[in-house]
Amino acid sequence: MDNGLNNTRKDFKILDQIVNDEPFVYLDNAATTQKPSAVLQSIINYYEHDNANVHRGVHTLAERATADFEAARDKVVAFINAPSRKTIVYTRSTTESLNWIASSFGDMVVEEGDEIVISQMEHHSNVVPWQQIAAKKHAVLKYIDLTADGELDMDHARQQITPKTKIVSIAHASNVMGVVNPIKELAKLAHANGAYMIGDGAQSTPHLPVDVQDLDVDFYALSGHKMLAPTGIGVLYGKQELLEVMPPVQFGGEMIDFVHHQSASWKELPWKFEAGTPNISGAIALGSAIDYLNDLGMQNIHAYEQELVNYTLPKLLDIEGLTVYGPHDPAKHTGVLAFNLDDLHPHDVASGLDMEGIAVRAGHHCAQPLMEYLDVAATARASFYFYNTKEDADRLVNSIQAVKEFFANGTI
Amino acid sequence: MDNGLNNTRKDFKILDQIVNDEPFVYLDNAATTQKPSAVLQSIINYYEHDNANVHRGVHTLAERATADFEAARDKVVAFINAPSRKTIVYTRSTTESLNWIASSFGDMVVEEGDEIVISQMEHHSNVVPWQQIAAKKHAVLKYIDLTADGELDMDHARQQITPKTKIVSIAHASNVMGVVNPIKELAKLAHANGAYMIGDGAQSTPHLPVDVQDLDVDFYALSGHKMLAPTGIGVLYGKQELLEVMPPVQFGGEMIDFVHHQSASWKELPWKFEAGTPNISGAIALGSAIDYLNDLGMQNIHAYEQELVNYTLPKLLDIEGLTVYGPHDPAKHTGVLAFNLDDLHPHDVASGLDMEGIAVRAGHHCAQPLMEYLDVAATARASFYFYNTKEDADRLVNSIQAVKEFFANGTI
Repeated sequence: MDNGLNNTRKDFKILDQIVNDEPFVYLDNAATTQKPSAVLQSIINYYEHDNANVHRGVHTLAERATADFEAARDKVVAFINAPSRKTIVYTRSTTESLNWIASSFGDMVVEEGDEIVISQMEHHSNVVPWQQIAAKKHAVLKYIDLTADGELDMDHARQQITPKTKIVSIAHASNVMGVVNPIKELAKLAHANGAYMIGDGAQSTPHLPVDVQDLDVDFYALSGHKMLAPTGIGVLYGKQELLEVMPPVQFGGEMIDFVHHQSASWKELPWKFEAGTPNISGAIALGSAIDYLNDLGMQNIHAYEQELVNYTLPKLLDIEGLTVYGPHDPAKHTGVLAFNLDDLHPHDVASGLDMEGIAVRAGHHCAQPLMEYLDVAATARASFYFYNTKEDADRLVNSIQAVKEFFANGTI
Repeated sequence: MDNGLNNTRKDFKILDQIVNDEPFVYLDNAATTQKPSAVLQSIINYYEHDNANVHRGVHTLAERATADFEAARDKVVAFINAPSRKTIVYTRSTTESLNWIASSFGDMVVEEGDEIVISQMEHHSNVVPWQQIAAKKHAVLKYIDLTADGELDMDHARQQITPKTKIVSIAHASNVMGVVNPIKELAKLAHANGAYMIGDGAQSTPHLPVDVQDLDVDFYALSGHKMLAPTGIGVLYGKQELLEVMPPVQFGGEMIDFVHHQSASWKELPWKFEAGTPNISGAIALGSAIDYLNDLGMQNIHAYEQELVNYTLPKLLDIEGLTVYGPHDPAKHTGVLAFNLDDLHPHDVASGLDMEGIAVRAGHHCAQPLMEYLDVAATARASFYFYNTKEDADRLVNSIQAVKEFFANGTI
């Protein structure tokens, strides 16, 4: 336990370094996670043995590359319990997935006067695409408020989601408030009102078991780089009958069936959405990341992170002048710990922690509507993953104390 | 020379393998190139030392990652002689770059009755996005024909490009015909008629010096994976004044200046277009690929490939029943050699070559309008890069002979 889940820390060479004369502690996992050696090796292995373009070739390496690329898709299917490989589209990121849902599916179904319901805790990637569609279609963008302790207010959700609602799009886990939202319940509410339910899985999929069929979401978005895979690969899950009618967003090679001089037709799912050479090595590395996560077990990862929060949150709350956003009950709080310290600017807090070798984030966390709602300009944020340890948590707590004293007394 | 330009072959471990009991020869470089050890090492180095999310962090690794990511952009700027970093936008690929130009800039400027001019030799990624805009705007999509020897017919270009033309979009080098198109001359023609000029640089940037200011293109698109970099990273170059007015295509983190509940504003160029976590490691590896190419010298690469073509093309033309598409003058022909053999299906030719350990492509090469124009269903295609050798060319020529004899006599 003290050395990270199942002693995984050794698999992350980057963690074993000195930053600003101190042993490095990485607590910025909600922004991006580190990558284990096995994932990096899968990239090298692909490029040193199998690299070729996919789907179009008859030669041996093209067949190997295609098999690797599509095998990774099967791993995604199983990882989120999607019903079939037709429902899993590779994208660049959660942001791209959400943009495609909004600009293609949203554009198709949202009509004038319709309502799109999001929440006060959404990431910009689940806010701005809906602002765009609302403005284009003269639809209304509505927000579900939060409870006093920072959870989604389900009473308010029941008021906001009505038969006028066409789309409900909510983060499965917040990148600021440290809460998991009741997506399954929201999906029921949306469907009962004839609306479509979209889950933003960027902060959930890396940290807890996700079953898109059980959640009954119509669409779900996730990013590889927040779950051990490299940057540049993400996933768009959609129910097959919706993806079938949703128009492709990009056009070109890979996604066409036949191109005439003045018209073209599309391939079947999921390739209809994958124009041009995809991020082949990124997809293969995502498959390797899923293998790694499955070996640990998503339930174990979730339980371990809960244990870390259980250990850390009370210590943070004990620091005088420190405010933690979201629930103060550790059982309700994820490994994302957003906080402010007295009247210090969070950038100063983060810079102070950086001088102690500790990486945390400071800013609006791409959630300015939430900052406005909370009436703060910004927050600091520490976020755990399974390779973090109680020792990391102690370093964080002690260093926050040191930063506080430095700014109070001018010495650290 | 016999061992590849400057003995580079040793840097590509993948080339040193046995495929179907024969030493491997990779001649599918127009689809994707192999990656040198230095590029692979840049990925590992990034993930083992500096990995963090970019632009948003104040901690040491976030600053290092941002510096690496933006330094790679500066390398792209210099590599194609762009006027500033504001003009270089990271995308997934040439396909995405062209789609963004069409769906955002094209959507903004093309009006009913306007004409969009492409050529008979365009890749689907430079055909279908324009079909979409033409259909949406009730504009006309026109094609420039080819000369008898497969070059762009500039007389026909002068007929097709008129004051009615709003957009001209042409491949700088063809992925089938093995020709380099006169983009600079086409840009002059387009501009003289008040149209915008777009260059598809997927097949040119890896193989010859590109200077976007000298070409005077308004937009230019290229892919990392065709020039030694990994999959999932591409570039959209645009003149600053055009990118300033072109609306962003995707919305979310990174690209915003401020998000209110009902509206948002955008960051300055180039970040306005880069929504969500970009392919950070892909961009850094593209920078490393550019370093590698610069060390060799693009003019040297171009000259070496010309030498390979000079050596290979006459030998191919000597094979009875073999048709090479595009110019038969080696001086006019790039390292892309599309061909058909008697009445054999190109898939059978490619499969036969694969049994000899030689990777070539067969199919329509994402250029079905060209196949229709040439009145063929498909072709085989061998394509060189600087790590190929005259020995590779000999293996290709001899194996084509063997495949021909096998299908004639049933033995190989």
